[in-house]
Amino acid sequence: MIMLPTPKKFFLTAAAAEGHSELTAFDNALLAGKIGNINLLKVSSILPPAAEYDPDLIIPPGSLVPTAYGFICSEVPGELIAAAVGVGFSADTFGVIMEFAGRCSRDEAAAKIESMLREAFASRGMELKDIKIAAVEHRVEKVGCALAAVPMYY
Amino acid sequence: MIMLPTPKKFFLTAAAAEGHSELTAFDNALLAGKIGNINLLKVSSILPPAAEYDPDLIIPPGSLVPTAYGFICSEVPGELIAAAVGVGFSADTFGVIMEFAGRCSRDEAAAKIESMLREAFASRGMELKDIKIAAVEHRVEKVGCALAAVPMYY
Amino acid sequence: MIMLPTPKKFFLTAAAAEGHSELTAFDNALLAGKIGNINLLKVSSILPPAAEYDPDLIIPPGSLVPTAYGFICSEVPGELIAAAVGVGFSADTFGVIMEFAGRCSRDEAAAKIESMLREAFASRGMELKDIKIAAVEHRVEKVGCALAAVPMYY
Repeated sequence: MIMLPTPKKFFLTAAAAEGHSELTAFDNALLAGKIGNINLLKVSSILPPAAEYDPDLIIPPGSLVPTAYGFICSEVPGELIAAAVGVGFSADTFGVIMEFAGRCSRDEAAAKIESMLREAFASRGMELKDIKIAAVEHRVEKVGCALAAVPMYY
Repeated sequence: MIMLPTPKKFFLTAAAAEGHSELTAFDNALLAGKIGNINLLKVSSILPPAAEYDPDLIIPPGSLVPTAYGFICSEVPGELIAAAVGVGFSADTFGVIMEFAGRCSRDEAAAKIESMLREAFASRGMELKDIKIAAVEHRVEKVGCALAAVPMYY
Repeated sequence: MIMLPTPKKFFLTAAAAEGHSELTAFDNALLAGKIGNINLLKVSSILPPAAEYDPDLIIPPGSLVPTAYGFICSEVPGELIAAAVGVGFSADTFGVIMEFAGRCSRDEAAAKIESMLREAFASRGMELKDIKIAAVEHRVEKVGCALAAVPMYY
């Protein structure tokens, strides 16, 4: 049976950047997060069973990469923006990924992620064994973007 | 020639739920719709030729699942929200999928879907042989989400 | 190693249309752009190394097609809307895709794309060898949609 292959590896990244426009600020934040030269395919948002954490994963340019992510762009100088992602791990099966971005601090974004992961595990009747979070905050200069992502690959 | 495999099976689902935040309400609606533990890849929105309707399709957790979907979240207690999807079938080739979500009733959402499917078939000069629709409405308590989806798999 | 296959071909398209609703206007714009009968998977936004330009690419209905795209729908009669996409090419490696849609003219949308591509190459320290742009503008009658896309296939 042929299907789309389920990802086997993942990492977390969070980064922020400025740009001349919202899309280039987003592009620059992807570059700062080391995922600027690949094709993100947005997914909602499960870590496949047995997927391995690999923070040194090298992905060839142009690859299609299933990725859970959240971001916020702002054109309001001085505004504080933040993005966070988190992975909640079970003992022996799939995990859950949550993402958040908003006008708040890094710590507030990370706290929201933790609380959403606890709710997601409670909803599934599953025990939450561990959490990994990546978060970033950014004070907008001209046009800023904060993003956080969990790229999943093979 | 290697390409992304075209889906061969599909089903329709519509569900609603509450959560502590919009993302967890969305997550709970996915769980209620039996698609909470997979990775939805949003597509726009064609049913491949010869795809079979399979309401009992089992999809392993973490799988990448091309899915046409619409949803609405609301934080306004008492508000009525609804989501609907529909598949329009031709006699012998591909079909068309439409999705809608808004502040309205289930019946209004379903009526919109039917009218959009008729327009989509007229635009293509194709005869609309049959329609399947799934729709849901939800009265918001605190933070609610209504979603409707056509997952496509293999 | 099994992964999602990296696209090998691409083309650019830009088109606009009217519809009875925003989603059917979008559907009609996809049809006008010759990508109405496939399943777009939205990607951000890299042209893989060695991908070939093929404006006559035929894609079977229902196929999953990684596509960078931007669109705008409007229900304001008389409003001018526009969408543009552009591909920036390097000498010997991957390229960058930018998309834009807004309430402006075709020329303004195309100029934005060119400037974003220049910024994207500068951010990467890469030389921009060539640019291809597709853009469209549309004066809204009732419900209009302008879209521009770079479908990538195999």
